[in-house]
Amino acid sequence: MTSFSSDVLVHPVILCGGSGTRLWPLSTSAIPKPFLPLVGEQTLFQETLARVTPDAGFATPIIVAGRQHRALIETHFAAHLAPADYSLIVEPAARGTAPAIALAAAMLDPSAMMLVCPSDHHIADLPAFHGAVSAACALAQEDRLVAFGIAPDRPETGYGYVRRGAPLAGGYEIAEFVEKPDLARAKAYLGSGEYSWNGGIFMFRAGVLLAELRRHRPQMIEQVEAALSQSVREGAATLPAAEPFSKIVGESIDHAVMENTKHAAIVPVEMGWSDIGTWAALHDALPSNGAFRSDTEGNHVSGNADLVDCRGVFALSDGPRISAIGLEDISIVVHGAEVLVTTRDGAQLVGQLPGAQQS
Amino acid sequence: MTSFSSDVLVHPVILCGGSGTRLWPLSTSAIPKPFLPLVGEQTLFQETLARVTPDAGFATPIIVAGRQHRALIETHFAAHLAPADYSLIVEPAARGTAPAIALAAAMLDPSAMMLVCPSDHHIADLPAFHGAVSAACALAQEDRLVAFGIAPDRPETGYGYVRRGAPLAGGYEIAEFVEKPDLARAKAYLGSGEYSWNGGIFMFRAGVLLAELRRHRPQMIEQVEAALSQSVREGAATLPAAEPFSKIVGESIDHAVMENTKHAAIVPVEMGWSDIGTWAALHDALPSNGAFRSDTEGNHVSGNADLVDCRGVFALSDGPRISAIGLEDISIVVHGAEVLVTTRDGAQLVGQLPGAQQS
Repeated sequence: MTSFSSDVLVHPVILCGGSGTRLWPLSTSAIPKPFLPLVGEQTLFQETLARVTPDAGFATPIIVAGRQHRALIETHFAAHLAPADYSLIVEPAARGTAPAIALAAAMLDPSAMMLVCPSDHHIADLPAFHGAVSAACALAQEDRLVAFGIAPDRPETGYGYVRRGAPLAGGYEIAEFVEKPDLARAKAYLGSGEYSWNGGIFMFRAGVLLAELRRHRPQMIEQVEAALSQSVREGAATLPAAEPFSKIVGESIDHAVMENTKHAAIVPVEMGWSDIGTWAALHDALPSNGAFRSDTEGNHVSGNADLVDCRGVFALSDGPRISAIGLEDISIVVHGAEVLVTTRDGAQLVGQLPGAQQS
Repeated sequence: MTSFSSDVLVHPVILCGGSGTRLWPLSTSAIPKPFLPLVGEQTLFQETLARVTPDAGFATPIIVAGRQHRALIETHFAAHLAPADYSLIVEPAARGTAPAIALAAAMLDPSAMMLVCPSDHHIADLPAFHGAVSAACALAQEDRLVAFGIAPDRPETGYGYVRRGAPLAGGYEIAEFVEKPDLARAKAYLGSGEYSWNGGIFMFRAGVLLAELRRHRPQMIEQVEAALSQSVREGAATLPAAEPFSKIVGESIDHAVMENTKHAAIVPVEMGWSDIGTWAALHDALPSNGAFRSDTEGNHVSGNADLVDCRGVFALSDGPRISAIGLEDISIVVHGAEVLVTTRDGAQLVGQLPGAQQS
């Protein structure tokens, strides 16, 4: 058990969003990625909660999720978390991360320290994560809005990048946010050593976030406050009113706040992070001693599968036997009445498949 | 309807053997390759019979098959062939093609002309086949033992090769039989233009074949005759006695006779031949207007399948949807509780898979 060291109580805010098509056919809109046991025996959502427990020094978590996943959260996690152990904010509609985080911020004391975490990421190095939380917390206490910068290990074109500016204690000012780059630019960023991936993990005081939103997105904060003022409580769940919330123009916290504020900071961290954004990314994140069987050729197998002369193959079956011969860097997923076979690059397109679109 | 022209009545001898593992999971020992509709709507066995019908000038066919496939033949083909329309010789044990052909030869008049055909080959060009039958028949009337030589179109290492010798009317003497060569030799054979594949199709008089067997394999012919002398008739079926037949040392007609006789001849033919020996070979044999859906990228699909950015992919499903992205020259076969994914080269190894071995 590692924990982060700070004299400030940190409130984890866990975001459960996403349409759940990139890991189709396992992930679907009904059961998206956070609620699947992908890397280990726990779901990514359970992993996320396990990183920010009261035992590790955190306040009870605030979970922000859509209506369609409320029952999943409440029933699936009732065994683990009593209503007193968490708060659930049920978004009336999906409007991006900025309004979701604003809902949580508006329910906290302005001085409360927030740690915003996506619920579908994998972090292999827990002490490194907690170390980054400590560093980010110190900067956020100085009213900075802090992003966690993931050390890039490849010229990924699927993520946003952050360029480091002037050094701060435990981090840097943010010189620039960059949208998903093309491959040439991604390679240049990787080579320069000045860029981190924007991992979607943030720390700031609730009041600081709300003040920045009020400055840059005044209409959004008005509608969030209106939705909360008419909200309904049901046990651990808060249900903001649908009518004002639905009028919000959806926007990410990056666009709405981080790119506009003068107080953005970044804490670079190497913590074995993965957003498990594709089957290839899951393959890369799998430990050699986990639930998957692995070999010296880089193959990972779960379920009934025979591999012959294969390298870098990921094979996952919920029943039927997979027999594979001569394949290299191919993912095979057999689930229900669906059989997916894709290259590493092709894995980026899984969400566009007819099957994924229908799911 | 094409037919071959000859004043000789030709007796088709259809060999149904094989363990049925190379096209696993579709082909199994219970239902091997001849009895599957692979290239078109007919099974390969039905295709084989359709090439040698009485309408096309042939005698009623003699089918030689193992006990395990007798019921399959009799029930599956009862609708097409009355007992008077065919003879069935039920091998008590699998002993290779030489004893199987000898059984048929020994039941015919010595002057009878035999056309020996495997039951699991595809021939796209029926007139070319019938033309070769005519040419082979003329040579066999001169007491030659004639092999059909398939024009090679690639340096195949999975077949035996035949080198042409001195020219004859409509064919050649055989200079040499060559076992399956390595790739370098296969390339040399292809380049020389002197070699044909040994397609396993033969013509000879029954008496000529028996005389050669008696000369080169006297024990085999004795045991074949003993098995027939104690045989039982059941309708169209002849059941040779198991005890003498089982003592035969199994051997192919190539080894037992063709490589030893001084009267071997070859008739080269280009007739769109394929032994459908692997999933890749089936892919190559598929017509663009057949039961499979095809596209300009060389993909062939049957059943529920979505291909994205794929080239040369063969996808066959009996139910579940196959979704494939970014693949090149890969075969995917979904059948029952089995999912096979293989490269073209890997297709050679399908029979060695645990699943195929258990089938």
